[in-house]
Amino acid sequence: MSQRKLKIGCAGLGRMGARHALNFANRTPRADLVAAFTPDPKEKEWAATALPNTTVYLNYDEMLKHPGLEAVIVATVTTAHAEQAIKAIQADKHVLCEKPLSTSVEISQSVVDTASKKPHLKVMCGFSRRFDASYRQAYDRMDQGAIGRPSVFRSQTCDKLDPSGFFVAYAEFSGGIFVDCNIHDIDLALWYFGQDSVVKSVVAMGITAVQPELRRHKDVDNGIGIHDMSEIIGTEGKLAINANPQGTLVEMHEPQGIRREIPSDYYGRFEHAFVTEANEFTAACLDNSRLPFKLSGAVQAVQIGCALQESLNSGQKIHFDETGRRIETSKL
Amino acid sequence: MSQRKLKIGCAGLGRMGARHALNFANRTPRADLVAAFTPDPKEKEWAATALPNTTVYLNYDEMLKHPGLEAVIVATVTTAHAEQAIKAIQADKHVLCEKPLSTSVEISQSVVDTASKKPHLKVMCGFSRRFDASYRQAYDRMDQGAIGRPSVFRSQTCDKLDPSGFFVAYAEFSGGIFVDCNIHDIDLALWYFGQDSVVKSVVAMGITAVQPELRRHKDVDNGIGIHDMSEIIGTEGKLAINANPQGTLVEMHEPQGIRREIPSDYYGRFEHAFVTEANEFTAACLDNSRLPFKLSGAVQAVQIGCALQESLNSGQKIHFDETGRRIETSKL
Amino acid sequence: MSQRKLKIGCAGLGRMGARHALNFANRTPRADLVAAFTPDPKEKEWAATALPNTTVYLNYDEMLKHPGLEAVIVATVTTAHAEQAIKAIQADKHVLCEKPLSTSVEISQSVVDTASKKPHLKVMCGFSRRFDASYRQAYDRMDQGAIGRPSVFRSQTCDKLDPSGFFVAYAEFSGGIFVDCNIHDIDLALWYFGQDSVVKSVVAMGITAVQPELRRHKDVDNGIGIHDMSEIIGTEGKLAINANPQGTLVEMHEPQGIRREIPSDYYGRFEHAFVTEANEFTAACLDNSRLPFKLSGAVQAVQIGCALQESLNSGQKIHFDETGRRIETSKL
Amino acid sequence: MSQRKLKIGCAGLGRMGARHALNFANRTPRADLVAAFTPDPKEKEWAATALPNTTVYLNYDEMLKHPGLEAVIVATVTTAHAEQAIKAIQADKHVLCEKPLSTSVEISQSVVDTASKKPHLKVMCGFSRRFDASYRQAYDRMDQGAIGRPSVFRSQTCDKLDPSGFFVAYAEFSGGIFVDCNIHDIDLALWYFGQDSVVKSVVAMGITAVQPELRRHKDVDNGIGIHDMSEIIGTEGKLAINANPQGTLVEMHEPQGIRREIPSDYYGRFEHAFVTEANEFTAACLDNSRLPFKLSGAVQAVQIGCALQESLNSGQKIHFDETGRRIETSKL
Repeated sequence: MSQRKLKIGCAGLGRMGARHALNFANRTPRADLVAAFTPDPKEKEWAATALPNTTVYLNYDEMLKHPGLEAVIVATVTTAHAEQAIKAIQADKHVLCEKPLSTSVEISQSVVDTASKKPHLKVMCGFSRRFDASYRQAYDRMDQGAIGRPSVFRSQTCDKLDPSGFFVAYAEFSGGIFVDCNIHDIDLALWYFGQDSVVKSVVAMGITAVQPELRRHKDVDNGIGIHDMSEIIGTEGKLAINANPQGTLVEMHEPQGIRREIPSDYYGRFEHAFVTEANEFTAACLDNSRLPFKLSGAVQAVQIGCALQESLNSGQKIHFDETGRRIETSKL
Repeated sequence: MSQRKLKIGCAGLGRMGARHALNFANRTPRADLVAAFTPDPKEKEWAATALPNTTVYLNYDEMLKHPGLEAVIVATVTTAHAEQAIKAIQADKHVLCEKPLSTSVEISQSVVDTASKKPHLKVMCGFSRRFDASYRQAYDRMDQGAIGRPSVFRSQTCDKLDPSGFFVAYAEFSGGIFVDCNIHDIDLALWYFGQDSVVKSVVAMGITAVQPELRRHKDVDNGIGIHDMSEIIGTEGKLAINANPQGTLVEMHEPQGIRREIPSDYYGRFEHAFVTEANEFTAACLDNSRLPFKLSGAVQAVQIGCALQESLNSGQKIHFDETGRRIETSKL
Repeated sequence: MSQRKLKIGCAGLGRMGARHALNFANRTPRADLVAAFTPDPKEKEWAATALPNTTVYLNYDEMLKHPGLEAVIVATVTTAHAEQAIKAIQADKHVLCEKPLSTSVEISQSVVDTASKKPHLKVMCGFSRRFDASYRQAYDRMDQGAIGRPSVFRSQTCDKLDPSGFFVAYAEFSGGIFVDCNIHDIDLALWYFGQDSVVKSVVAMGITAVQPELRRHKDVDNGIGIHDMSEIIGTEGKLAINANPQGTLVEMHEPQGIRREIPSDYYGRFEHAFVTEANEFTAACLDNSRLPFKLSGAVQAVQIGCALQESLNSGQKIHFDETGRRIETSKL
Repeated sequence: MSQRKLKIGCAGLGRMGARHALNFANRTPRADLVAAFTPDPKEKEWAATALPNTTVYLNYDEMLKHPGLEAVIVATVTTAHAEQAIKAIQADKHVLCEKPLSTSVEISQSVVDTASKKPHLKVMCGFSRRFDASYRQAYDRMDQGAIGRPSVFRSQTCDKLDPSGFFVAYAEFSGGIFVDCNIHDIDLALWYFGQDSVVKSVVAMGITAVQPELRRHKDVDNGIGIHDMSEIIGTEGKLAINANPQGTLVEMHEPQGIRREIPSDYYGRFEHAFVTEANEFTAACLDNSRLPFKLSGAVQAVQIGCALQESLNSGQKIHFDETGRRIETSKL
């Protein structure tokens, strides 16, 4: 094991960027967060105290030139992911890019194409659930044959309400709920069923699209403890992940019954997965070992997400042939 | 409260018929099971011991003429439900008919039409979940506003594997899984969202239809403890029914973890609901009080079930206009 | 199986008496509740409607003379249990006597002595948990060796607050909490570990005895959902009964967390056990089959309960020798 | 917040020592593990790789002289705790000492006395449960009045079987199960009920002391998933901590039922508490802020643990007067 530390920089110090930066600075023993980029002076000010050993740049290209920099976390807004990831790869840096690579299939593919020209670099899309202890245990059990042949996968991802209206504004650029949020569920399906799985058809339904209730419904999905959960049904059993969510191990026995509190947001649920992600990405860069999954899956996930979004909007089911090409409804 | 007992007869002494007969004979204080019909001499023999106070007929029409008979339970094979229910109504008997009335929408409707000419009779389709304490509590909580405005209903019904091949033979006449089995889920949606709800579209997917694994898959859905469960998601909360199934209140702490056993079949789960059904149907007949739900919903449920079955077979989504008429895909 | 019905009478139509009477009248197919006794005219009036086929006596001795009466349920106040049970045995009736036989060991023993002179009679003390499906399943699992050698038994029984002050008045004659309430836990220990177990010592502690908070504490034990539960720890595993109590199968997902409601009192928890008790007692009487447990255990349970009550009051641990005789502390 | 890092040394690199060392080296951003002590050359060899930036000493006194050393973790065998803690205090180092300070009340008190002469030093006994998120949430809820007035505290601590015979050898010096293991439960009681609580009496029972099954029983307490748990019963509710233990969030649905796996040992359960402990101890040293609890409680805990051990051995209940002095049984 090399005792050398990985010199890494973090692009973006917003909500997720700040978390990545703190994880690499304080909870990733083999990494040094030497640089960070933010266009926001307030975030730069925050970093002066929170990240005392990190040089903060207001310009992304400047950060890439930080002496000795070996790797970059891209955790800016989704619209910037692909361009910044491509620039970093071209500057010969390893890249951990937040999901999705892009809301466009073509642009996502361009990141993969760029990376394929630099096979010595580690380029990973940050599907954090892949590093979660529960999802990993479920995968191992499935892989060991505990549930026979996996047949049905069911998964839901939710996000916490931001009453500031953040999501409504965010929705303009997010690519829609399937590309932004449920991309985690799609990625999990690709993981559990294998990236070589062929999608035959997709269909989406939602009440936000057909009623003037978008905001209120989002409120619902969050305020009430509708939580992330997944299940894999096999021919001999079922694995459920987070069907019974739990914050701490405390139960309250009250006159109204027995009550468990649950994590208030996805970071409360997945905090340790992000730390594991940081440590495993760092190890892969330093030891030149394999990343746990392929970058190309990130394009497949966007492709499926976009088809679901289209189905949601059109109300139609979308069919594919065995090579993955779309079949027009009139030709069915 | 009348102290008079309801004289009732049970058509069918097979799996469900025998249960109904025993429930009316032994667990329905206000009913007397005076008659039963079965074409099967073995079942007649069983009844001689199990139902000592009941006259057993090998001919349905004979049973209808039993002196003083006031009501009939129709619990024969699905293909006989409608005809026997109609005969009983015409003979001026109250009727509790097992679900579905028929696998055909038209035939189901003919039962409703016949009943509507005899408004003094109580005619009910046996949707047993409507009598389950858990489903009722969930309905009450929803009705009291506990989860805000109900928005999404999700429900699954499974059946236990019969390794004798019963289901494969049964499938020939059952009308398919949506009309036979998931009709419970459809009925629950009509209950929770109201019978006046308008269906906009239906779409079904399944792996049994597209793979030569029907039997093995059925095996799976049953042998493994995939259990009935439902959830109602509202704007301010969620109600889950049987998300954590439980047979007894025992938990086993073993080296492999903590384990709960669960009911081995739907009757283990719903036994008490069937007893409640028997008692409430009896009370409605004796006291001329209202049945808890309308017969016409049973036609709607078959209609939706048939559309789902068609969607499963064709791979297409099916759309309806606001009056419930189908819209051709080409006209969308 | 005899088709004859057992003619039974119920002494007491108070809280528990009324439940027993209704269970034998309506939920015990092989029994006829032909007679009942209550000294209370209001209860007699209630019975006129609720038990239309039952003759109600205001005098216990009169009830015993009811033509054809074969068996008696004793469900009056604890202080009357022994005398009424003895009278019934002497009148050659089978007896199901509510727990405890008496708060006095000697008087309890006198019931056993009387019964031993009439070995053809079925005389049982109503330890209802012995008929509960969960406790039975746990016993079976233990008996099959699922947890190795049973080593530790832990059990708690609670009762629901009666804000009328019922319990405070009741406490005057109840024999104290260990003889009245925790006698269930003691009986369970005798069941699970065997009636031949030798008690080495007992010690009791409680906050009700040392603080002026008796009533308020009782309130606590009830209002808050401190529920009955038991666990049997063995050398290879543990069985927990009702560690996670559950009323219906509904879970509420609310902003404050996930909540289950639980049965509001012991009858909500044990209703079906009482019905099973009624049916099994009836079957034993009609078929002259063995009762599931011996009457003598009821004396042992009172003996242990009295020792615990004494320990609670004196603050001392009480020791016994191998024959069950007490050892004075000064002789240890 | 000071950006300076705390220079700390770890005495002991055995089971717990190695964990503390790794936590301070890799998961405590404000600490530098500059030194370590172990008398074991194999552990020194392990440290060369695992703790590349730490100087390892084979002599404790040498380690205390490490340049700039400010604080010491004492994680050696229990018999060395007190002497090493006292030496460190005398050398003007902050001390985090593993529990118990000693198995002797007097020796434990001598650590407190030494520390009281150096009030500028932070000296803490490592009761790790005090840093656990679940125990803290339960304390906060109790403190906010969620369960009314706390009345009963029930708690159990178990350890994992070490089939090497480690525990049997260890037992010679451990001070017995109450001082070594259940001292956590005692400390929790002092925390939840307040360190000023007066103990009136203690009584202990156990099957290990009276049967030749010590080893096998220990095996049991561990191999089977008897897990740590606590509950606080108040006048208006109950708080349960880890009544339903959980390793990951995965549930297995199998033919035998629904199963959760649980953490295999106490470190799996409390790993994050140890990390929090390391970070909070470091912050208190650097910022000269208050430790979360007083050192003197560690003496009280040993005192109560010794009395319980004595009660276990003698079979007697032990009484104390209001000042904490023992009352002889003959004087009661």
